[in-house]
Amino acid sequence: MALICSKTEDGVYYLTLDNEARRNALSIEMLEAISDALDEADKNKDARVIVINANGPAFSSGHDLKELTAARNSEDKGQAFFKKTMLLCSSVMQKVVNHRLPVIASIHGVASAAGCQLVASCDLAVASLESKFITPGVNIGLFCSTPMVALSRNVSNKHALEMLLTGEGTSATKAAEIGLINRAVPLEELDATVKWFTDRITAKSAMTIKIGKQAYYKQSQMPLNEAYDYCTNVMVENMLKHDAEEGINAFLEKREAEWRDD
Amino acid sequence: MALICSKTEDGVYYLTLDNEARRNALSIEMLEAISDALDEADKNKDARVIVINANGPAFSSGHDLKELTAARNSEDKGQAFFKKTMLLCSSVMQKVVNHRLPVIASIHGVASAAGCQLVASCDLAVASLESKFITPGVNIGLFCSTPMVALSRNVSNKHALEMLLTGEGTSATKAAEIGLINRAVPLEELDATVKWFTDRITAKSAMTIKIGKQAYYKQSQMPLNEAYDYCTNVMVENMLKHDAEEGINAFLEKREAEWRDD
Amino acid sequence: MALICSKTEDGVYYLTLDNEARRNALSIEMLEAISDALDEADKNKDARVIVINANGPAFSSGHDLKELTAARNSEDKGQAFFKKTMLLCSSVMQKVVNHRLPVIASIHGVASAAGCQLVASCDLAVASLESKFITPGVNIGLFCSTPMVALSRNVSNKHALEMLLTGEGTSATKAAEIGLINRAVPLEELDATVKWFTDRITAKSAMTIKIGKQAYYKQSQMPLNEAYDYCTNVMVENMLKHDAEEGINAFLEKREAEWRDD
Repeated sequence: MALICSKTEDGVYYLTLDNEARRNALSIEMLEAISDALDEADKNKDARVIVINANGPAFSSGHDLKELTAARNSEDKGQAFFKKTMLLCSSVMQKVVNHRLPVIASIHGVASAAGCQLVASCDLAVASLESKFITPGVNIGLFCSTPMVALSRNVSNKHALEMLLTGEGTSATKAAEIGLINRAVPLEELDATVKWFTDRITAKSAMTIKIGKQAYYKQSQMPLNEAYDYCTNVMVENMLKHDAEEGINAFLEKREAEWRDD
Repeated sequence: MALICSKTEDGVYYLTLDNEARRNALSIEMLEAISDALDEADKNKDARVIVINANGPAFSSGHDLKELTAARNSEDKGQAFFKKTMLLCSSVMQKVVNHRLPVIASIHGVASAAGCQLVASCDLAVASLESKFITPGVNIGLFCSTPMVALSRNVSNKHALEMLLTGEGTSATKAAEIGLINRAVPLEELDATVKWFTDRITAKSAMTIKIGKQAYYKQSQMPLNEAYDYCTNVMVENMLKHDAEEGINAFLEKREAEWRDD
Repeated sequence: MALICSKTEDGVYYLTLDNEARRNALSIEMLEAISDALDEADKNKDARVIVINANGPAFSSGHDLKELTAARNSEDKGQAFFKKTMLLCSSVMQKVVNHRLPVIASIHGVASAAGCQLVASCDLAVASLESKFITPGVNIGLFCSTPMVALSRNVSNKHALEMLLTGEGTSATKAAEIGLINRAVPLEELDATVKWFTDRITAKSAMTIKIGKQAYYKQSQMPLNEAYDYCTNVMVENMLKHDAEEGINAFLEKREAEWRDD
């Protein structure tokens, strides 16, 4: 199997890309496995946060060029296969964005093309210092057009276009400076840094996180006044939930809240 | 009174949050006082820039949880009161954005939840080094959904979601790095730094500032070609004003301009 | 002539602003020359990247105030002339954005008002350390309303408004930090740094660059799902081109690709 799924007791749902031989390429098989795992995590009541990481030296090399090239021998020169791959990939990326659970990328090694897109699509990202981020499609004649959808929603135009037009890698330190990831840390601190994030997120009400994350991306695409109208309603609805009452009472009574996740 | 208003001779209009006991919570009373003060500053011909600062160790703790909780005892479980608060708060934030005068936040201490939203809604912000910015709603079951409208229009997704999903504080230095504020300075330099901004702004034509600030937010929500069409008209209109003619003449004649503010 | 055009053997198309006496002001003559040069570069099959740089100590001082003031003596107080200038300027800036070739600004000295807008409108920008970026219209009563269209699409609100409302200059180092330019380098490294970019871009397929650059700006104005639908189609179309097949084959065969630019 291309993907290993595991869950900790406190609700951290790990998706580990596990195809070292193919540098964790996002083949059809891998993309379908990620899509299924995201669906499963959605249904799992105990899951509170998702971490996507990888085995082997690379995080992910992006689409599987061998798979794409093999499909060129078909009658339509691979058009149907390539379109299927692109649609599946775009759907997986949007499933990450729209998921009820926060998704954290934990990167060590290279995140390339659709691999870089996956990092950009996650809500949070932590990388080891030697990691690299690259959108090298331009080097092989095939511009990273779908990766740039996610990339351009994370970093400024000049930074995105530098990566896209030159096809050169960006260091983890630079990636943290330009907003592509949250933290660049020494490899030996990677797991602890990810745990810092997951510890905080698993301690919240899953209802609150779901309402907030989903409203975040929705409002970010609205004009200011519409965003305020929309989020005012979101917040009033949130206020009437059990966990908001419990949370506020616990705060005023200086005790730990007991979440019911509704 | 929750808010102290004062005006300097050169047109700096100060709004000082003054409810130290409640950590300058944005209660209904406080929000209404800010709203009225913004209206007054709008009408005051001598006002050229607004500074929002605070007395006491906190800038603002956000909504008044005690006030919200008290309202839960009503028949509708506080829904009407909470909605009233949210609508008022969103209207105050938009009044800051749409105001004819630039609004500068001068922060020392914690800016939390709607307090952080107020900072994000200002045109400019300066903070002392020990200040903290935090959207902790997620810790009490009530996601900071309206604060995120302002926050997400200032910083990149990864940075906004880190604050919103973890509920952890962001230092003033980090806030300056990610674009939430303009400057993080030692406390003893805070007033001088704010004065650096107000000195420059009070020296301009109030007509020019009004045209520019209001067009800024309007064009920022348009596609590029529409933004250019719109701003071309704004600039032609601006060019025909007295102060543009006076300003350009003064520049070419190497003398100080004498603004008439029209 | 206000503008010197030249092309290197490897396809770097230089546009050199050359009116030192007027600090390379963007007069009607200069804007028309840039517009024509952009059209010419578009038609030139050998051109692969455009570099805009300048002779003399200033990059560009923006609009020509003397020209604008002279026009005030006409019956309509210069309204028609000013509008013509603004429309031409906005059209040149959008021609840069929409050009099939990447456009790199190479700045040494001051980039002011529409000069700063030109930098912001380029895909990439490199500046010598002593360069300054400034939108000083507010100082002469005429807010930099069209420059802010480009500026606000490069840097965060707080940073853009600081420049626009104070009229103070931003150093090259700060400009790199806030995303207005890609690199701030010592003057003696400026040409080599620009060459680093042009060497990489001229080595790509011009077809790939064109598809990617034009899709970049288009998708950046769409909601996420529309952007994915659009870019999925762009990428499938790109995949079927000669240079994508050649590029992928060359990569798998570990040899240099031979572009046909289609």
